Amino acid sequence: MRRVNLGLIGFGTVGSGVVKILKEKRDCLKQKIGTELFLKRICDKDIITKRKVKVGESILTTNPEDIIDDPAIDIVIELIGGIHPAKEYIIESLKNRKYVVTANKALLACEGEEIFDTAKRCSKNVYFEASVCAGVPIIKAIREGLVANRFLSIFGILNGTSNFILSRMSEVGESFSKVLEETKRRGYTERNPSLDIEGIDSAHKLAILAYLAFGKSINLRDIFVEGISDISLLDIRYAKELNLAIKLLAIAKKTDLGLELRIHPTLISHSHPLASVKGIFNAVYIKTDLAGELLFYGEGAGQNPAASAVVSDLVDLSKDIKAGLFRPTLDIIPDSSIKKLRKITEIKTRYYIRFMVLDLPGVLAKISGILGSYKISIASVTQKERKKAKAVPVVMITHETEEKNMQKALEKISRLTVVKERPVAIRMEEIL
Amino acid sequence: MRRVNLGLIGFGTVGSGVVKILKEKRDCLKQKIGTELFLKRICDKDIITKRKVKVGESILTTNPEDIIDDPAIDIVIELIGGIHPAKEYIIESLKNRKYVVTANKALLACEGEEIFDTAKRCSKNVYFEASVCAGVPIIKAIREGLVANRFLSIFGILNGTSNFILSRMSEVGESFSKVLEETKRRGYTERNPSLDIEGIDSAHKLAILAYLAFGKSINLRDIFVEGISDISLLDIRYAKELNLAIKLLAIAKKTDLGLELRIHPTLISHSHPLASVKGIFNAVYIKTDLAGELLFYGEGAGQNPAASAVVSDLVDLSKDIKAGLFRPTLDIIPDSSIKKLRKITEIKTRYYIRFMVLDLPGVLAKISGILGSYKISIASVTQKERKKAKAVPVVMITHETEEKNMQKALEKISRLTVVKERPVAIRMEEIL
Repeated sequence: MRRVNLGLIGFGTVGSGVVKILKEKRDCLKQKIGTELFLKRICDKDIITKRKVKVGESILTTNPEDIIDDPAIDIVIELIGGIHPAKEYIIESLKNRKYVVTANKALLACEGEEIFDTAKRCSKNVYFEASVCAGVPIIKAIREGLVANRFLSIFGILNGTSNFILSRMSEVGESFSKVLEETKRRGYTERNPSLDIEGIDSAHKLAILAYLAFGKSINLRDIFVEGISDISLLDIRYAKELNLAIKLLAIAKKTDLGLELRIHPTLISHSHPLASVKGIFNAVYIKTDLAGELLFYGEGAGQNPAASAVVSDLVDLSKDIKAGLFRPTLDIIPDSSIKKLRKITEIKTRYYIRFMVLDLPGVLAKISGILGSYKISIASVTQKERKKAKAVPVVMITHETEEKNMQKALEKISRLTVVKERPVAIRMEEIL
Repeated sequence: MRRVNLGLIGFGTVGSGVVKILKEKRDCLKQKIGTELFLKRICDKDIITKRKVKVGESILTTNPEDIIDDPAIDIVIELIGGIHPAKEYIIESLKNRKYVVTANKALLACEGEEIFDTAKRCSKNVYFEASVCAGVPIIKAIREGLVANRFLSIFGILNGTSNFILSRMSEVGESFSKVLEETKRRGYTERNPSLDIEGIDSAHKLAILAYLAFGKSINLRDIFVEGISDISLLDIRYAKELNLAIKLLAIAKKTDLGLELRIHPTLISHSHPLASVKGIFNAVYIKTDLAGELLFYGEGAGQNPAASAVVSDLVDLSKDIKAGLFRPTLDIIPDSSIKKLRKITEIKTRYYIRFMVLDLPGVLAKISGILGSYKISIASVTQKERKKAKAVPVVMITHETEEKNMQKALEKISRLTVVKERPVAIRMEEIL
């Protein structure tokens, strides 16, 4: 039986991990597939720097065409990241009748439609298990394991850095900026961490999950994104007192009025399994019509977890290649019950709001008057301290409220002279 | 493209669920597979009682041979449960060159080797996603998603009834027998609940998971099994005070000395994700060499979740059938680093032990003397009450201890006249 020839573009952290697995687990993988996964070529801009895994010099190249145009190569593994030239490499590879495996979440989120269309036209598949939650086989679970299910909602902790920061703030009581420094020291985040903490990375991953679960090509602009940089220790503490945890959640929720797609800091019950997802871990909580509630949890980043996912894609594709079979990716079907994507201003959630106000008679009446005029009904109010003639925190939990009303009310309240800081508002989700 | 013909044996709860899905999601499944899943025949002893899902009378039969011997049927779905005649039906179906989908955990645990051997000889596959954790695609995750991984350990909450009982005892403070009655009223358990609460059902499922993860055909006798019927409210309360939760865990753990396989009530840290698995939910926590720590969580039983898993197997097999492809189940490879299965007497764990002793001077010295003579070292001791001349509870946490020494020490201690009840001993696991 003929071997399956692989070409790897991108010999960085994850790429080296893939090479190491292919080497160390060669025999075991061969037995499982029934044929050999043969790494024919590796392309990288830098083929000088020594990697931890040894490869023959003759297979290294700086020219991607040595892979993309090689008719003997069956699968191209794209691990360079970024939109360009990764997109061009993938499109060319597909046109040259190669299968593609990628971990490139930004690319799939931004250019997925064109890539998947090209794959279909070329009768080839693009697999991307490593793009969301690294080693956790969540793509496979949604696409195959839950194939008979309609998806109702997805709540994901999809960015390890943000989750580490929020967990750490909550556990050791250190400020956002201090913990952010720690993530940089530990190598959990890039020098420019904005993709992580501003929620962009989570949005990329949510776009991919929503595409699989709801069959909709998602435009990134349709996802509301709010990061965690404004979360303060004070609010984490008050949330705890209310038995709530703050998590940066990626939410895709089907309602009768459309599909909601949003990334924002979210208050959830301490007893919900997502609340116990700590540190750099990722988790995806899914509700479906048949299987009910499911949670998938694991390490969302790192060389080995990501490489594990890449190799699982290689094995799946190789079984088909070995059998001389192409199984077209027919399996993404638009959920026809979704009429539209909902704007953030249209959605309804409960809210945690905190005001810093002067401790004077009549202040609460003023604030609740404004809230009431926007049909915002208050479930609970707590004034946290008493300090005459100084600003003190007042925390409110609202009943379900329309986002646009909340925004207007907060705007109006923030202009009151007794209100001393910009009001804090954090959306709540009752997930169960 | 020709349709895929199905024959269902067992028109009970899960069987009806499968029929309902095939009916309601017919078009969607057809689109995903590229061909139709056609239910040609249903066999059941009882074809008189009306089910909630309507089927044409002509496809009903009481004779399994109408399915097993029908050359047009591609896949036989076995959902009658139990060892006989399910085993014979499956073996005959394989010999007649049919694929098989089953949810029968007891059968696979007890007769899996013969069934898988037959499948291999007949170049057909047996799929069984519904046999463990119902709708949670854990079989697929281990077999495909984590294909490149070596498994280090599996910790599973695999029986929803037992987990419901322990959660309920802990949450509302009701006794084992009272909560057991509630599970019967709610229909969570059979009239004879011993399979659930004595750990047998968990052992069946662990045998299947261990087979997949470690490539070992497990004899049920090699799994140590201890149920939850001796767990008292007192111990749940004391465990809570120590920030520990009691769970019925199914454990498969690879050590340098061999593979440990055991089911028993286990104390784990309250902060571990498994501790937050409440009610009838199931969860599997896995440690591997590459992907690291993973948790899969969901509803472990019920018509829809189980049927969801059965249909996912049908879809996977149908894609191969449609392509005229047989992909042999090559993918179970024995982990050659496992030299033997360890006996329970050989394993080492920490222990929670509770004695009911007379509150007299010297009692503690006597007990700790005996423990010491068996090399059992004590990490903490708490006497819970003071009642002169009456039995009071003394709770100890030990350091790591050999099981056989613990058994001998407890035996000796229980014969002391100052010890008034059989000592309680619960194993602990530090999973992280």
